[in-house]
Amino acid sequence: MTELNDLQTKAADHLWMHFARQSALEAGQTPIIVKGSGHHIYDDAGKEYIDGLAGLFVVAAGHGRESLAEAAARQAKELAFFPLWSYAHPPAIELADRIASYAPGSLNHVFFSSGGGEAVESAFKLAKQFWKIQGKPMKHKVISRAVAYHGTPQGALAITGIPSLKQMFEPLVPGGFRVPNTNRYRAEESGFTGTTDEEFGIWAADRIEEMILFEGADTVAAVFLEPVQNAGGCFPPPPGYFQRVREICDRHDVLLVSDEVICAFGRIGHMFACDAYGYEPDMITFAKAVTSGYAPLGGTVVNDRVYEPFRQGDAMFSHGYTFGGHPVSTAVANANLDLFEDEGLLERVRTNSPLFRASLESLLDLDIVGDVRGDGYFFGIELVKDKGTKESFDGPESERLLRGFLSKELWEAGLYCRADDRGDPVIQLSPPLTIGEPEFAEITGILRDVLTRAQAQL
Amino acid sequence: MTELNDLQTKAADHLWMHFARQSALEAGQTPIIVKGSGHHIYDDAGKEYIDGLAGLFVVAAGHGRESLAEAAARQAKELAFFPLWSYAHPPAIELADRIASYAPGSLNHVFFSSGGGEAVESAFKLAKQFWKIQGKPMKHKVISRAVAYHGTPQGALAITGIPSLKQMFEPLVPGGFRVPNTNRYRAEESGFTGTTDEEFGIWAADRIEEMILFEGADTVAAVFLEPVQNAGGCFPPPPGYFQRVREICDRHDVLLVSDEVICAFGRIGHMFACDAYGYEPDMITFAKAVTSGYAPLGGTVVNDRVYEPFRQGDAMFSHGYTFGGHPVSTAVANANLDLFEDEGLLERVRTNSPLFRASLESLLDLDIVGDVRGDGYFFGIELVKDKGTKESFDGPESERLLRGFLSKELWEAGLYCRADDRGDPVIQLSPPLTIGEPEFAEITGILRDVLTRAQAQL
Repeated sequence: MTELNDLQTKAADHLWMHFARQSALEAGQTPIIVKGSGHHIYDDAGKEYIDGLAGLFVVAAGHGRESLAEAAARQAKELAFFPLWSYAHPPAIELADRIASYAPGSLNHVFFSSGGGEAVESAFKLAKQFWKIQGKPMKHKVISRAVAYHGTPQGALAITGIPSLKQMFEPLVPGGFRVPNTNRYRAEESGFTGTTDEEFGIWAADRIEEMILFEGADTVAAVFLEPVQNAGGCFPPPPGYFQRVREICDRHDVLLVSDEVICAFGRIGHMFACDAYGYEPDMITFAKAVTSGYAPLGGTVVNDRVYEPFRQGDAMFSHGYTFGGHPVSTAVANANLDLFEDEGLLERVRTNSPLFRASLESLLDLDIVGDVRGDGYFFGIELVKDKGTKESFDGPESERLLRGFLSKELWEAGLYCRADDRGDPVIQLSPPLTIGEPEFAEITGILRDVLTRAQAQL
Repeated sequence: MTELNDLQTKAADHLWMHFARQSALEAGQTPIIVKGSGHHIYDDAGKEYIDGLAGLFVVAAGHGRESLAEAAARQAKELAFFPLWSYAHPPAIELADRIASYAPGSLNHVFFSSGGGEAVESAFKLAKQFWKIQGKPMKHKVISRAVAYHGTPQGALAITGIPSLKQMFEPLVPGGFRVPNTNRYRAEESGFTGTTDEEFGIWAADRIEEMILFEGADTVAAVFLEPVQNAGGCFPPPPGYFQRVREICDRHDVLLVSDEVICAFGRIGHMFACDAYGYEPDMITFAKAVTSGYAPLGGTVVNDRVYEPFRQGDAMFSHGYTFGGHPVSTAVANANLDLFEDEGLLERVRTNSPLFRASLESLLDLDIVGDVRGDGYFFGIELVKDKGTKESFDGPESERLLRGFLSKELWEAGLYCRADDRGDPVIQLSPPLTIGEPEFAEITGILRDVLTRAQAQL
């Protein structure tokens, strides 16, 4: 057994963290997680935490599932690796068939990757090739929303709408354009002058059409949208939004990609979240919860229209990933989806979501809590300096509040979640789908205590 | 148990293959692989094949390793998933420490991903950010070699030197420039007018300097090179090549990235292939064999110089992957590297490589075999129409030869390998590192039979 302080030293000397300051690691301030069980995780001192983020929107079925570990071992012994490069294997075939059966309408074809960023890259590249072989080679641009996160490979990153994640890596793939997101709480700041949610939905959708017209429909390949946008803190679609977006995409012959890397597989109470909001995209990207994170996997579901030109002769999507549709990962995904069905996790989320929401909304009596929003088991709590004016915290204040106080205090209090300021400061919650009312109360209790102390020290 | 023709139908209806024609799948011509054991794989009819490609340069330790399956299950039960986003876990820390101990010189810092393309993206993005925070924001271009494959995300793809893999996806990340590769067999066609291997090495390296000067050193961030270039069919570096490249990179303040996604972890008989050729890059990318493919993993090893500006304060590499450094994948990698050490796989490759080479070189008496080249357990056999003139096959001939005859006949004869024409037509061999003389003879025997029939039907 490795000594624990030995682990801290090795980590500081050799492990480069993701989206994190190495100075924290070198100062020995990086938590080391050693165990997971149900909706709890444990650090190297044996301390228990509620996993309020499902790892990173991932561990839908909860930690420590023996059946998923056994599925991985069984497949690894039988056929641990073979590529999908001109060869197929049973677990990928079975999973493709199953995912196609879950996906709406004519979304019947599954291109696997190893994760979400690669899934978005696949959708972006496929949109480009589709239009080229349709005789519309100028259609290569992509439209997405402000503050939206769509991944970090440099194609996906060109779709991501968070400038601070991109500026160090410019120039990226050309052709990414941004429109406003569906932040209802701050709709007026985006220029919305209407009144109702329905009006806001139309207004926000029409900004996509405006951008298509700005750039010229003959140059636009696709629109990438999350059903509920994560970064910025859980923006659900206003009523009518996606219906209007679908009309706009059809009118201008632009593909609609539903980026469900976070929202698919139960997060919103459906296998695919587009079903929750009643729209049918041309492609869906997924990853994370498809395996509950027990093995890396992602993929892109494609409809018959986009697939059709690739069916004949020597046509080929000139794209692939060595580990895409990995036998162990796809076997684990099949076992994970068995759990979803056996335990009725989708129904559980749909039934409990209003209770989770109500529990979190009870925090609205705190001055610092400006907004609670989200859907399914996926909520964001926006923190404000002044509730009346919705004034937000500036950069240094946000730094002190989120990194200086909240992240540390929530962790100390036994809640793992995310205090984030890629947009306005928010606390993000996305727990395993297995939790229920007692855990809602526990999470809300911790939040109330820590947020109360946070506003006291402002 | 699923019916097999049922699998073929499901695959045709729902599984989108990688770098493959869907028409073959829809025609029921896609092999379905169901089992692996040692250096053999088995299709759904129970037929046995020698795995001459280690899956896809991946299954270094061979198929069916119980210890790797058990390592995966053990870790999945303990902690199946947690991200490296501000948090660490023991298997990633242990693996980072171990990889740093294998890497040469000051290559001490490991940034994990889920595969090779992501590892290349990480290196490309890190090079860009490194120069920006060094006050040289114009240094963003990257240089690589003709016909080299560096991955498919649109940053990595901009480095890849195979036009047919890129044209459908243009525009890519700006700033990728190509120089000649180290194809000694066709050096004269590239414009080399010298005589010796040493002269060729200097000439090829100097073409990199030429390109740096063409573009302006102040705009060039990095050079990406495989130790032995795979695509095109195994081009080892001529003597002195990498030493000269290192001098050129130092002279112009350009980072040298050794893309070892294929070559690392034993393929060339060393943990890292730069050691085999005596050079020290600024970064190394790896993937594939680090887990022998039992779980998806990749990574980028970075030297102290590039790491230094990220150590202090709020400095951060604004990059990450949800599944990068996955607990199960890193646990499997640790178990895999235990096998490497326990079974002396590196020594085995170094000892046996000359025997493998000699066995394949015996095929040079065939008219169709123009060249045999490579290193370690990694060889390419270039096929020619006229051995005297080195005349190659044109597109339609290559199509008939490779896809119409060789791929099918080699498979029928029980050998899984790759007949490829991303450059000139080659057969690629990259078997598990566990094989030895009997298997060399078996592979060569099959190749002799099939190639003899191939040249007879030309």
